[in-house]
Amino acid sequence: MKPSFISLDWGTSSLRAVLVSEEGAVIEARSAAGGVMSVKDRQFEASLHAICSDWIENFGCPIVASGMIGSRQGWVEAPYLDCPATPATAARALTTLQISNRVDMHIIPGLRCGSKTTMYDVMRGEETQIWGADVAPDSVCVLPGTHSKWAFVDEQSRITRFATYMTGELYGLLTKHGILGRLMEFGGSDKEAFVRGAKLGLAQLAQATHVIFAARTAGLTGEVPPAGLPDYLSGILIGVEVASALAAEKVSAERPINVIGDDDLSSRYEAALQLAGLRSVRARDGATIQGHVRVAREAGIVACESA
Amino acid sequence: MKPSFISLDWGTSSLRAVLVSEEGAVIEARSAAGGVMSVKDRQFEASLHAICSDWIENFGCPIVASGMIGSRQGWVEAPYLDCPATPATAARALTTLQISNRVDMHIIPGLRCGSKTTMYDVMRGEETQIWGADVAPDSVCVLPGTHSKWAFVDEQSRITRFATYMTGELYGLLTKHGILGRLMEFGGSDKEAFVRGAKLGLAQLAQATHVIFAARTAGLTGEVPPAGLPDYLSGILIGVEVASALAAEKVSAERPINVIGDDDLSSRYEAALQLAGLRSVRARDGATIQGHVRVAREAGIVACESA
Repeated sequence: MKPSFISLDWGTSSLRAVLVSEEGAVIEARSAAGGVMSVKDRQFEASLHAICSDWIENFGCPIVASGMIGSRQGWVEAPYLDCPATPATAARALTTLQISNRVDMHIIPGLRCGSKTTMYDVMRGEETQIWGADVAPDSVCVLPGTHSKWAFVDEQSRITRFATYMTGELYGLLTKHGILGRLMEFGGSDKEAFVRGAKLGLAQLAQATHVIFAARTAGLTGEVPPAGLPDYLSGILIGVEVASALAAEKVSAERPINVIGDDDLSSRYEAALQLAGLRSVRARDGATIQGHVRVAREAGIVACESA
Repeated sequence: MKPSFISLDWGTSSLRAVLVSEEGAVIEARSAAGGVMSVKDRQFEASLHAICSDWIENFGCPIVASGMIGSRQGWVEAPYLDCPATPATAARALTTLQISNRVDMHIIPGLRCGSKTTMYDVMRGEETQIWGADVAPDSVCVLPGTHSKWAFVDEQSRITRFATYMTGELYGLLTKHGILGRLMEFGGSDKEAFVRGAKLGLAQLAQATHVIFAARTAGLTGEVPPAGLPDYLSGILIGVEVASALAAEKVSAERPINVIGDDDLSSRYEAALQLAGLRSVRARDGATIQGHVRVAREAGIVACESA
């Protein structure tokens, strides 16, 4: 397979580089812990060379990157693109810099939606995952994570709007630094406690800052054992998120929700969606790489110099 | 004035002791940093003597205590009393221990409401404040704090139900340990940012875990200056709490909400209630002491041995 470009998924905590063929297939994949937050003194170029200098040197491959690398804390700030957005509009808004006087690195813009009068929302990296996940037109996507995203893709496959839920960060803060964590025993898994929490959260979406206190009272009263409390809280927070997102959009029970992610967290969202009476479908793996392929093709980034 | 009993407001972070007269007036008040969490090796009796051994020795005064001192982490666990609850039912459910083989210390039970099928809620200390705040029958009380409480007092002045909102703890966690704090400058005050946040929170009560993300995007887009972001987040969280509490109960705009507390935080709640179109009334100072007086009288704790 002939190399076409280097796909960089450069987020807050990790860096993944993939050499992509002209057909859009993975020739080789590498990963490193060099996320944006762990790069010292802004030595981004050194981190890049550490992971794939050979691809740059040997093939002169251009680079397509997405994620927090384009944030203010990243290498170069790639201004947000307003919704509705597609691979084509993103391809026209790339932020490009030259690497080693030889190849171009193109950073895909993050997206912005909302308004000054209510609130803005932003994403960086998830837009590329959505475009690569090959979701059906006119459907809803959820990308579970520290800051979960719910995005709406219209009939023309445009991302029209999205919303961030701080579910993962709240779970981390409440369990690691807050009073709820004090009654908890960590390390186990309690599916039943998760389901109880999710049902409570789904029913009490408009009482989020109240209902999380159930993870304390259920411990105090012995309703949920200490080892079940972490999953109980996880269920409450994910239940609140799912119900809130569904309340904000009139989501049809006919059409499955696209869950984009490939870890245990996605399974929790699938379970919560099921409890909410909705179907879900897990997106294919490698969504980010396929998103890069789509944007690269729209931008005419098709071949390495010496491939 | 003849001393009648010692009032102890013994919470998580502080200890206040007041020598109360037979008329229910303050003879002398003292405070110490010896909150339940700072007492080492369960040396509660030593902390008590350090603050008021003279009152015990000289007058043989009985003690009435409320707050976290009756929690599992406190001196002796005082089991929760179920709602509806009054000073009279609390007086029949005191947990009593003897101090120095001489005087009795009576711990007022915390309250519990809710149910196994939804969730339980608990309070410790706030019930005493409510009873002492002399609120009108059939009214709503809010006690701002790390864990704010909203309580409902019926025509017979019984606390019928209440709900905890983790507003203060969430504010602390999100600003001290979370990503929202990274864009913030602390130390100032920005009333306008607070009002903007409160309006957003009031309007988006069913989107709490989403709308707090506005405290990041408003910083990224320059909508709110870094020094205004702490108050913006405070407004969002208090707005969400006020709207959620009002949504859970059909609160009449005719009757003012009782705000029980005497600090800057209470002023924020008053501002948010006003933005929600409601009136509020600040409860009198010394509510805890007056709550102790009511329970003490119901329990027949009326005089010191040698007063």
